[in-house]
Amino acid sequence: MRNDGRSTGQMRPIKMVPHFTSNADASVLLEVGNTKVLCTANVEEKLPGWMRDQRGKSGWLTAEYSMLPGSTHTRSKRERTNISGRTQEIQRLIGRTIRGVCDLSKIPDITIMIDCDVLQADGGTRTASITGAYVALKMVVDSMLRSGKIKSNPICESVAAVSVGIKGEQILVDLNYDEDSSADLDMNVALTSTGRILEIQGTAEKQSFTKDQVVQIIEAATDSLEPVFELQHLAADGETVEG
Amino acid sequence: MRNDGRSTGQMRPIKMVPHFTSNADASVLLEVGNTKVLCTANVEEKLPGWMRDQRGKSGWLTAEYSMLPGSTHTRSKRERTNISGRTQEIQRLIGRTIRGVCDLSKIPDITIMIDCDVLQADGGTRTASITGAYVALKMVVDSMLRSGKIKSNPICESVAAVSVGIKGEQILVDLNYDEDSSADLDMNVALTSTGRILEIQGTAEKQSFTKDQVVQIIEAATDSLEPVFELQHLAADGETVEG
Amino acid sequence: MRNDGRSTGQMRPIKMVPHFTSNADASVLLEVGNTKVLCTANVEEKLPGWMRDQRGKSGWLTAEYSMLPGSTHTRSKRERTNISGRTQEIQRLIGRTIRGVCDLSKIPDITIMIDCDVLQADGGTRTASITGAYVALKMVVDSMLRSGKIKSNPICESVAAVSVGIKGEQILVDLNYDEDSSADLDMNVALTSTGRILEIQGTAEKQSFTKDQVVQIIEAATDSLEPVFELQHLAADGETVEG
Amino acid sequence: MRNDGRSTGQMRPIKMVPHFTSNADASVLLEVGNTKVLCTANVEEKLPGWMRDQRGKSGWLTAEYSMLPGSTHTRSKRERTNISGRTQEIQRLIGRTIRGVCDLSKIPDITIMIDCDVLQADGGTRTASITGAYVALKMVVDSMLRSGKIKSNPICESVAAVSVGIKGEQILVDLNYDEDSSADLDMNVALTSTGRILEIQGTAEKQSFTKDQVVQIIEAATDSLEPVFELQHLAADGETVEG
Amino acid sequence: MRNDGRSTGQMRPIKMVPHFTSNADASVLLEVGNTKVLCTANVEEKLPGWMRDQRGKSGWLTAEYSMLPGSTHTRSKRERTNISGRTQEIQRLIGRTIRGVCDLSKIPDITIMIDCDVLQADGGTRTASITGAYVALKMVVDSMLRSGKIKSNPICESVAAVSVGIKGEQILVDLNYDEDSSADLDMNVALTSTGRILEIQGTAEKQSFTKDQVVQIIEAATDSLEPVFELQHLAADGETVEG
Amino acid sequence: MRNDGRSTGQMRPIKMVPHFTSNADASVLLEVGNTKVLCTANVEEKLPGWMRDQRGKSGWLTAEYSMLPGSTHTRSKRERTNISGRTQEIQRLIGRTIRGVCDLSKIPDITIMIDCDVLQADGGTRTASITGAYVALKMVVDSMLRSGKIKSNPICESVAAVSVGIKGEQILVDLNYDEDSSADLDMNVALTSTGRILEIQGTAEKQSFTKDQVVQIIEAATDSLEPVFELQHLAADGETVEG
Repeated sequence: MRNDGRSTGQMRPIKMVPHFTSNADASVLLEVGNTKVLCTANVEEKLPGWMRDQRGKSGWLTAEYSMLPGSTHTRSKRERTNISGRTQEIQRLIGRTIRGVCDLSKIPDITIMIDCDVLQADGGTRTASITGAYVALKMVVDSMLRSGKIKSNPICESVAAVSVGIKGEQILVDLNYDEDSSADLDMNVALTSTGRILEIQGTAEKQSFTKDQVVQIIEAATDSLEPVFELQHLAADGETVEG
Repeated sequence: MRNDGRSTGQMRPIKMVPHFTSNADASVLLEVGNTKVLCTANVEEKLPGWMRDQRGKSGWLTAEYSMLPGSTHTRSKRERTNISGRTQEIQRLIGRTIRGVCDLSKIPDITIMIDCDVLQADGGTRTASITGAYVALKMVVDSMLRSGKIKSNPICESVAAVSVGIKGEQILVDLNYDEDSSADLDMNVALTSTGRILEIQGTAEKQSFTKDQVVQIIEAATDSLEPVFELQHLAADGETVEG
Repeated sequence: MRNDGRSTGQMRPIKMVPHFTSNADASVLLEVGNTKVLCTANVEEKLPGWMRDQRGKSGWLTAEYSMLPGSTHTRSKRERTNISGRTQEIQRLIGRTIRGVCDLSKIPDITIMIDCDVLQADGGTRTASITGAYVALKMVVDSMLRSGKIKSNPICESVAAVSVGIKGEQILVDLNYDEDSSADLDMNVALTSTGRILEIQGTAEKQSFTKDQVVQIIEAATDSLEPVFELQHLAADGETVEG
Repeated sequence: MRNDGRSTGQMRPIKMVPHFTSNADASVLLEVGNTKVLCTANVEEKLPGWMRDQRGKSGWLTAEYSMLPGSTHTRSKRERTNISGRTQEIQRLIGRTIRGVCDLSKIPDITIMIDCDVLQADGGTRTASITGAYVALKMVVDSMLRSGKIKSNPICESVAAVSVGIKGEQILVDLNYDEDSSADLDMNVALTSTGRILEIQGTAEKQSFTKDQVVQIIEAATDSLEPVFELQHLAADGETVEG
Repeated sequence: MRNDGRSTGQMRPIKMVPHFTSNADASVLLEVGNTKVLCTANVEEKLPGWMRDQRGKSGWLTAEYSMLPGSTHTRSKRERTNISGRTQEIQRLIGRTIRGVCDLSKIPDITIMIDCDVLQADGGTRTASITGAYVALKMVVDSMLRSGKIKSNPICESVAAVSVGIKGEQILVDLNYDEDSSADLDMNVALTSTGRILEIQGTAEKQSFTKDQVVQIIEAATDSLEPVFELQHLAADGETVEG
Repeated sequence: MRNDGRSTGQMRPIKMVPHFTSNADASVLLEVGNTKVLCTANVEEKLPGWMRDQRGKSGWLTAEYSMLPGSTHTRSKRERTNISGRTQEIQRLIGRTIRGVCDLSKIPDITIMIDCDVLQADGGTRTASITGAYVALKMVVDSMLRSGKIKSNPICESVAAVSVGIKGEQILVDLNYDEDSSADLDMNVALTSTGRILEIQGTAEKQSFTKDQVVQIIEAATDSLEPVFELQHLAADGETVEG
C-alpha cells in the first residue's frame, strides 16, 4: 500500500471548481490530492508577432506555468528576472499538448492564453495543469461559440494527463511529492478521451527501464484517466465536481 | 449611493480564510468584495546578505506582491524579466508597514517573508495585502512562540489598511475598481488598532486637495477599519471569518 | 537647535542655476544645502507606445531619477542592469506630481521627459527633484509657447516639495542626511503655490504618528515652501537665484 | 524511399572525429548526415553552489547546448540576453540522459561540464548531442582514471540517442530537417548499449498516436542505435570513425 | 627565437577552409596556428530598425564575435545573459574594419551579418576574425553579384589584420597565447591590400611606447600580411589554402 | 580655419574645477570647450572577487563612464537594463589607460574606482574623461599618502589624452562634435607627461590612412597636450585652473 493508503493504480481525489475567479474569460481551480492549480483562460483578438504571415488563416493557443512562492514546503523564489529551465519545459509541454487537440485554423486571428498558477504543490503539478488547462480551454471556446465570436468548434478531442512512476517492481499512478522524490522513473502521459497518446515523456531518474514497462505505464495511465474525462466535461459546463 | 449600493463610509464585505493552503508556514485568503489576495508567510533562519553585520542582533521582515495574469479584466503580463515600478512601490509599502509594528530585535537571525499574490483584483489590492499580510505574520509569529523558536513576541500592535477616495465633494471608503478609476484622489491609510497612523500616501490624480480633506480621510479610515482588527484577531487564531 | 544651526521650521539655503547645461531643451541646477540635483527637460514630438489611442488628444509628461555613483558618502553602484525599487518609487512620485499641475490635452502628441540627476546627495533629493523638475518644465513650456509649437499653456499651477520629519516632539522641516537617518518619521509633501496638496506620503520609520501631527506637518510645509515658489518663477525666467 | 534515398529504418552516415580541438579536456566532432555537433568536456574540481551539502559525497555532470548563428538555413539569433525555452529543454535533456549512466558518487567534488555546440543543423541535433556528449564524457573519464584523479569508473553503461518519426503509416528513423518538418510525430529515444531505455519523449505534432506505435518506435530505435555504440567506443579511444 | 621556433617577423601557418559548413550563405574556417575561427556570412533583405530613414539609400554590414566555452584552456562561461565588455569591443572592431572597405550605398536595403565563432583560441582571435570575416564577406558578395541580387561590387579593397607586440626590445609579429600574456605591448593592425591602414589600436599593458615603435610595428604588420591577401583571394574563390 | 575659429593644432579652452562635489573621496569637473565631465574617485579597502588570489600583493584601479540623458542634443536613453558596446569600450579604455601609469602593487588590497559622468557632450568625451580621471586619481592618491593609508606613491607618470582627426589633408586637434561627425579619421591618443604613448586607437571612418599620417597625429597630440599636464598638476593640488 502507498504512503497515503492508495492502491498502485489509484489516482488521488480530484476536485474541479469552475468560475473560481471571475475576471478572466474562464477559470477553474483543479485539485488533485493536495495539489491545487488555478487555470485561467483569456482571449485576445490578435496574433503574436511571429505569426504575422498567418493572418486570417490561423489562431494561436499557448500556456504559461508558475508556482506561487508559498506553494511549496520550502518557499520558492519568484522567477522575476529570468525563467528557469524547469518552468520553460513545463509550459512548453502544456502548450504543445493542448494545441494537439485543437484545430487552430478555426480560431483565425485569435490568441487563447492559458495560465496555470500552482497555489499548492504536492506532486503532479504539470499533469494537473494539462488537465485543468483543457477545462479552461473548453469553457472559453464554448463561450466564444455562444457569443458567435467563432463559428465552429476548434477542439477535436478532450485531453487529460497523469504521471506514472516505477518504484522497484511497482507501477504507481499519480505520484505525490514524496513518491515522486523516491521513484526510479517518473513518466508523464497525456491522453485523449479516445485513449490515444498526445505526449509521453519519461526519464530514468535512478535506473533505466524497458519497452514492456512503457507499455504497462501507458495502460495504467489509460485506466486511471478514464473517469477524469467525464469530470472535465461537467466542470466545463460550470458544475463543481469531485471524483 | 455608490455603484454597488454602499454608503460613502462603508467598506465592502470582508472574508478571511486562514490555512487556505498548507505548505507555507502560514496562509490566509483575504477577500474584500471581489478582491482576493492569498497571503502566505515563510520563516527562514538566516539574514539577507546586506544585514551581515546585524547577526545576533536583529531579524528581517519583508514582503513581495504579485498579480496573477488572470486576476484582472484584461490579462496582465507576468513580470518575469523585470519588476514594474508599480509592483516595486507596492511591495515596498507592504514591507515598510508591517515592519512598522514589529520589533525586529526580537527575532534575531530570522527572516520572515510575506507573499501577497492577488488571485482577483477589484481595487484596493495593496491595502488588502497589508491587512492580510498582518494576519499571516501573526499566525507565523504565534507558531514560532509556541514552538519556542522565538522567546518573546516581536509584534507591538496590529495593522490594517484601507483606501479612501475623494470624488467631487464625497469621501468614499474602500474604492472598488470602477470607483478607483474615476476618483479625483485615492489615498491609502494604514493604521494600528489603537488608531495611530503607520503610513499615509495620497496623490492628486485629477485635482489637488486640502488639509481639511486629509483630516476627513484619516477619520473615515479610522472608523471603517475598527471592525477589521477584530476579524484579523479571529482569523489569526484559525477561524474563517466574514464581516 | 539643529545640527546645522537651523530652527525647526527653517529650510536650508536654496540656489537655482538655470541653463547650467545647454544641450537639453531646458536645464537647471538646484541646490538645497549640500544636495545638488541637475534637472533637464527634453521634448519629443511623439507619444509613448501605450498611448497609441490618445493620438491627437493628449500629450505625456514623465520623469526619470538617478544618483551619480559619486554623489553619496559611500559610492552608490550604478543601476545598469536593473532599477532599484527606491529609484522606481521616486521617479514615479516625481512624474505623478508634475503631471498633477499639467493639462496634458494642451500638449497633444508631445512627450516631455524630465531627468533629475543627483550630483550630490545630502537628504531631500526626491523633494528637491520635484522642485527642480517644475522649473525645467516651466522653462521648456515657455519655450514651446514662444516658438508656437504649442498654443496654450498646459501648466495650471506651480509645484514645489519639501520633506518634514518628526523627531521626538519636534517637527523638523527639510531634513538633511543626518537628520533623515535619525528621524522617527519622514513625510514628503508637494504643494501648489496656492497652498493645496498634490502629494503627501509618510511612513512611520520608528513609531506611529497621529492625525494632529499630519496637520502640523502640512502647515510647516506650507510655510516653508512659500518663498520657494517665487524663486522658481525667477529661475524659470533665466535668473540664477538664491534664497 | 526517403528524400535522401534511405530506407525507413536506416540512419544517416555517422562520423566521429575525436580531438577535433585541443584546449578542452576532451573534444569530439560528431556528424550525422549534415548535422555537425562539436562536443567538448571540461573538468572542474569544485561543485556548483547548490550542492554545498554534498561535499565529499558526490560530483556533478551537466551539459549546455547552443546553435551557432550560421548553423541554420536562416541565421539564428544568438541567445545573449536570455535562453530560449527550446534551448533550456534540450540542455536539460542532455544532462539528464548522461547523468542516467553515471554514478556521481564516484567523482566526489568534481564537476564535468559537457558543451554541445551545433556547427551545422539538419535535424536531430539534440539526439546527436547526446550521442556525442557520451563520447566526450568517456574520453574525459578515461583521462581522469589514467591520471589517477579518480579511482573508479563512474560510467555504468554507454548511451546513444536517435529521433524516430511517424509519417502517415511509416516509422522513419533519424529524421533530417525536411522530414522533421513534415512528420506527424517526432519521438526522441535514448538507449543504453544493453537496450534499456533512459529517456523517451514524444509529442503529437499533428496527430495522436497509439501504444503499438510507441512499441514500434522503441524497436526501430534499438535496431538503428546498435552499431552506434561500437563507433562511440572506438572514437572515445581516439580513432576517427565513420559508419 | 620564439617559443614556437618562429623568427620575430614570422606569422604562424595559416589555413583557410571555405565552405566548411553549408547552411550559411558563406562560410570559411580560418586557422592561424592553433587559433581556429569559423566565419559565416548571412544576407537579409532588410535594414536594422535604426536605419529606417536610409531605406533605398544604404545597406548595412556588421559582425558578431563569440568564443565557444571549450575553445579556451580553462572553460569560458557562455555569455547568455549579458555580453562582456571584451566581446563588445571585439565585435565592434570587426564590424568597423570590414565596413571600412565597403561602400554600403551599393547594397541598398541589404544587411550582411558576419559571425565569427572561435572554435579554438591561441592568441590573435580578433585579428584572425577580421581576416576571416573579409573572406566570408567576399564570398557572399560574389554570390550576390552572380545571382544579380546586387548590381555592382561594394567592396573597395581587401582587408586583413595581425597583432604585433613589443617584448623587451623585440617587435614580435602574430603573438600566440603565451607571448600575448607576457608582451609589454600588444597592438592590432588592420591593413588594406594596398598597404593603407584601416585600424590601429595599441595599449601599453606593461610600459609605454614611442612613436618610432609605432612606425616599426606598422612596417612589420605590412610585411607579414602581404602573403595573406593572396590566400584570402584564393579562399574566397572556394579553394582550401595554406600558407 | 575651423568652425569655432581655432587653428588646426589648437585645443579648445580647458577648465578644471577640483572639489566640485564633496561626498566622493575626490572630485573634479573638467570642461573642454562645451564638453563637461564630472570625474569622481572613491577608495574601497577591498579587492574585486576575481582578484582573490592577489590579496596582500596588489590593488585594483578601474573606471566607469556614463552620459547623462540630458547631456546630448537629442536625449540619450539611460543604460539601465544593459550597457551599450560604446560605453563598455570607453570605460575599458579609461581604465586601461590610468592603470598604465600606476603600480598596483603599491596599493595592496585597495580598489580605486573612477567615475566619469558626462554632464554635457560636445565631442572628445572619452579623452576628456581620461584627462579628468587622472586628476581625480592623483587627488585621491595624495590624500591616501597624507593619511598614511598607503606608504608610497603608485603613480609613475601623469597621463592626458586628446582626439586628433584627419579631414581632407588637414590634421585637426581636439575635434568638437560637428568636426567629429565629418572627419575622415578620428584617432584617440593618450600620452604620458614625458611624451611616451600609453594608448593609440584610430579607425578609418571614411577612408584609410598612412603610416606618415599616424606619425603626424602623434606629433600633434604631443604638442597640444603639453600644457595640459601642468593644468592637471595644479588642479590636483586643489586649484581651479583654465588654459
